[in-house]
Amino acid sequence: MPTRDEKNFDPNSLKGKTHEIIFEANTFWGKTFDVSLLILIVISIAVLMLESVDAYNILYYKYFYYIEWVLTILFSIEYAARLYAVKKPMKYATSFYGVIDLLAILPTYLEFFIVGTHFFMVLRVMRLLRIFRIFKLVQFLNERNTLAYSLRRSWPKISYFLFFLLLTVCVIGTLIYLIEGGNPSSSFENIPVSIYWAIVTLTTVGYGDITPITPLGQFLASAIMIMGYSIIAVPTGIISAEIARHKSGDDLEILVCQYCSEETHLPNAEFCHQCGHPL
Amino acid sequence: MPTRDEKNFDPNSLKGKTHEIIFEANTFWGKTFDVSLLILIVISIAVLMLESVDAYNILYYKYFYYIEWVLTILFSIEYAARLYAVKKPMKYATSFYGVIDLLAILPTYLEFFIVGTHFFMVLRVMRLLRIFRIFKLVQFLNERNTLAYSLRRSWPKISYFLFFLLLTVCVIGTLIYLIEGGNPSSSFENIPVSIYWAIVTLTTVGYGDITPITPLGQFLASAIMIMGYSIIAVPTGIISAEIARHKSGDDLEILVCQYCSEETHLPNAEFCHQCGHPL
Amino acid sequence: MPTRDEKNFDPNSLKGKTHEIIFEANTFWGKTFDVSLLILIVISIAVLMLESVDAYNILYYKYFYYIEWVLTILFSIEYAARLYAVKKPMKYATSFYGVIDLLAILPTYLEFFIVGTHFFMVLRVMRLLRIFRIFKLVQFLNERNTLAYSLRRSWPKISYFLFFLLLTVCVIGTLIYLIEGGNPSSSFENIPVSIYWAIVTLTTVGYGDITPITPLGQFLASAIMIMGYSIIAVPTGIISAEIARHKSGDDLEILVCQYCSEETHLPNAEFCHQCGHPL
Amino acid sequence: MPTRDEKNFDPNSLKGKTHEIIFEANTFWGKTFDVSLLILIVISIAVLMLESVDAYNILYYKYFYYIEWVLTILFSIEYAARLYAVKKPMKYATSFYGVIDLLAILPTYLEFFIVGTHFFMVLRVMRLLRIFRIFKLVQFLNERNTLAYSLRRSWPKISYFLFFLLLTVCVIGTLIYLIEGGNPSSSFENIPVSIYWAIVTLTTVGYGDITPITPLGQFLASAIMIMGYSIIAVPTGIISAEIARHKSGDDLEILVCQYCSEETHLPNAEFCHQCGHPL
Repeated sequence: MPTRDEKNFDPNSLKGKTHEIIFEANTFWGKTFDVSLLILIVISIAVLMLESVDAYNILYYKYFYYIEWVLTILFSIEYAARLYAVKKPMKYATSFYGVIDLLAILPTYLEFFIVGTHFFMVLRVMRLLRIFRIFKLVQFLNERNTLAYSLRRSWPKISYFLFFLLLTVCVIGTLIYLIEGGNPSSSFENIPVSIYWAIVTLTTVGYGDITPITPLGQFLASAIMIMGYSIIAVPTGIISAEIARHKSGDDLEILVCQYCSEETHLPNAEFCHQCGHPL
Repeated sequence: MPTRDEKNFDPNSLKGKTHEIIFEANTFWGKTFDVSLLILIVISIAVLMLESVDAYNILYYKYFYYIEWVLTILFSIEYAARLYAVKKPMKYATSFYGVIDLLAILPTYLEFFIVGTHFFMVLRVMRLLRIFRIFKLVQFLNERNTLAYSLRRSWPKISYFLFFLLLTVCVIGTLIYLIEGGNPSSSFENIPVSIYWAIVTLTTVGYGDITPITPLGQFLASAIMIMGYSIIAVPTGIISAEIARHKSGDDLEILVCQYCSEETHLPNAEFCHQCGHPL
Repeated sequence: MPTRDEKNFDPNSLKGKTHEIIFEANTFWGKTFDVSLLILIVISIAVLMLESVDAYNILYYKYFYYIEWVLTILFSIEYAARLYAVKKPMKYATSFYGVIDLLAILPTYLEFFIVGTHFFMVLRVMRLLRIFRIFKLVQFLNERNTLAYSLRRSWPKISYFLFFLLLTVCVIGTLIYLIEGGNPSSSFENIPVSIYWAIVTLTTVGYGDITPITPLGQFLASAIMIMGYSIIAVPTGIISAEIARHKSGDDLEILVCQYCSEETHLPNAEFCHQCGHPL
Repeated sequence: MPTRDEKNFDPNSLKGKTHEIIFEANTFWGKTFDVSLLILIVISIAVLMLESVDAYNILYYKYFYYIEWVLTILFSIEYAARLYAVKKPMKYATSFYGVIDLLAILPTYLEFFIVGTHFFMVLRVMRLLRIFRIFKLVQFLNERNTLAYSLRRSWPKISYFLFFLLLTVCVIGTLIYLIEGGNPSSSFENIPVSIYWAIVTLTTVGYGDITPITPLGQFLASAIMIMGYSIIAVPTGIISAEIARHKSGDDLEILVCQYCSEETHLPNAEFCHQCGHPL
């Protein structure tokens, strides 16, 4: 239980009870709290999305407004309870999830004072990040770790690859701008837009909002696409190799035979396959 | 023969004969039945598709109507025969393929009573699922199992990844809506549409029906695409590793312990890891 | 030298000489012949392509016409020489490359008689396939085999996967047609077009000529894209695993130690790593 | 330190000092020089990009002009210093980075004489390549090598694959031109454009600027996309396998034979495979 850094708490005190409900997930009330919080967050995000749809916002503006305030007050109570329940409130308040929790309630209060700004919407969507904490406690823990570990190990290679990609798209973007840019009906208006096009093409997204119209431009585009075809294989290859390595690693290296020190055993092995001694 | 859960049937009775023809594929009539059924399903789907093309529907409406009824009656007879031939009709009727078989005939009867509705079309397309049963009996069995096994094993990781992706596109969608949404000529009308755009972009589909037009929006889009470039590698990596692992699993299944029948051993094993006997 | 099924030929006869030049690539004249043929084929394809561009065709129609006839006569001479040089002309004429060689010269003669048809163009492009024969003799042989072997081994799994994909796009196409088809401004005019859209989306091509416009349609499209995101990983995983298996296979399984029968050695091993005896 | 091919230099002479600052990265001044150069290159590229945006170019043309000249003079001084500091100036001047360094300063001087040409822009973007040299000295060295090694080893297979792809798109392009080209409202105007479309489709970029409109054309396009779905897996598979192989190669390098210093052994080796001594 890596999230229990509070083992010398009195579990029967009010503080202890609150902590158990809010921060843990293996009691009935702890689970109920997590599920309720999850539902509230989902409602909150649903309201945020519907609010952005003009058709709904005109009709139900008031309801959205009230729901948002009720949710904000509930989240504020939760934030206060968290501050009360932890041993070191300051440490929690400055931790990653502490800041997220604060950002989850601040926007509504700020919108109250600073009317008419939409910038706070993006802060409200940050509430989604709180879902990660809930799931961290209940499920997926193992899957997350394997993936996270593989991604962390792949990161130096991937980042080098992305850096190389960035230089490549700059060169390609300038080239295509030279070829297509002179044409008055061309959408390659300037180099930054041409680089945007190069990225859209190399990643095989291909919106089609900007497309080459001269034969030479189409030829260059074809070359880039075929090149991108091989390039897309690189990050996949890196991550595949890393996941495969991690996989074969974590299942086999657990057991060591005490007689012959053979280290590689099948996960369900009960006897050493080299000397026959029980493990 | 895993599909023969009826071994204590009298194979010479009418029931037994019917069962053999309908449910099995290793006799001449069984094969003939399967092939005929396959052809009827394909005709049925072809009619469904042509019916939806206005140009054909105006000209050949009557033919489509008659073919559909003939097929429905044939499928009804087949359904009745299946109910008759199995030992436990209720168990069949409530099984996955039993429900599919019923759904394959219901739409036409329902359309007879409830005129003018097109909702039943989607039920008629469910007939395609019946093709799986036919092929399950004849071919591909091994391929299906390897793939199915690998996919089932990859599922926890993939589902965690998709959950993470869903949260990511919500955050990205809100961000791009904030950047592009204010622009009157923008297609980012609301957050749900922006999230749809984020999915279209991250999966590298890139329809181009919604594209960023402000420089900042194009910059964010570029960043998302390059990010998506690495992200697309993750499910591929997971499944590759799983298939590769399953493959090498095939290698492991060569040895069988003569004492405890354990089948999975490391390639260099000299002793059974379950009972400790020499291999 | 697998292409030499004519080893009891007299290499100094005219027939033998012709055979050596045309069918083999390790003599000076054999190489010259191959390179000349390659250049002629490339010119032929270039003419075919330029001919299709109206701007060039109007200006240079005559030149294209003459070049095409010169090339056809040269190819005819080559075809005659091949028929003359092989031991069993009928066997060559009915072989894969024999048919391709005939198809490479037929279109021009046929166009001479049947004026105004463009169908023969596609036959002229078949000349490209002849390039494969040239390269088969000189280079890439090993790369081709590894790839071909891996692809052949992956084929049952891939074909099962494609079959499954086909059923899936039919169901998806019908579903989206039901959702979007009713809308008068929708491009989902009928089920075949909707299936075309489903393929365009699942393969992440995403032209954008047909896009969902209702919220429900966009939601379904999003679900399909995210699904396709994992699905695209399957053929990659299958082929990766196959290539990886083939790779590690062909390097290691060559040597067998004659003393301890250990089979797995590094490619440059000179001593057995299990018993220390020289290999 | 592979870049020190000048070890018999007097490090305290002016030449030695200059060399140390410009070509090496492990002293304070060497690092400062590299970082300054990096900043100057990034400024230079930023100016190039902003210059191409009409809105900025009209307003700040003069500033861009002055910055460009200052940078060119600084780069010229650097080039002169490099020529002075190396032992064999001619060898440096004709080396890859020597040519790049010259191309980085030439455009501005040439634009001074040959007014009104934009062709030199693409030469100015070549300055980006100089960033590679800077990073080669400081970081990523290991990542680059693993990737470069894997890519070099994959190259024969990838190039064969790309060659095959090129022939395939020519055949597909001609086919679709035959099917769609007759239609007056079709965008498949000629074979080169149709091949461009085939590449856009097979690589799953899918701009949508050219799309089939006849049912037969859409059917062929669907077939190509599904084919491309499996084809895209091939380069990924090749590179994945290569990276995975290189990876497991890392594992082999743990053991070093004390007699012959052979470093590559199988994980379970007990004797050196080169000299036969026990490990």
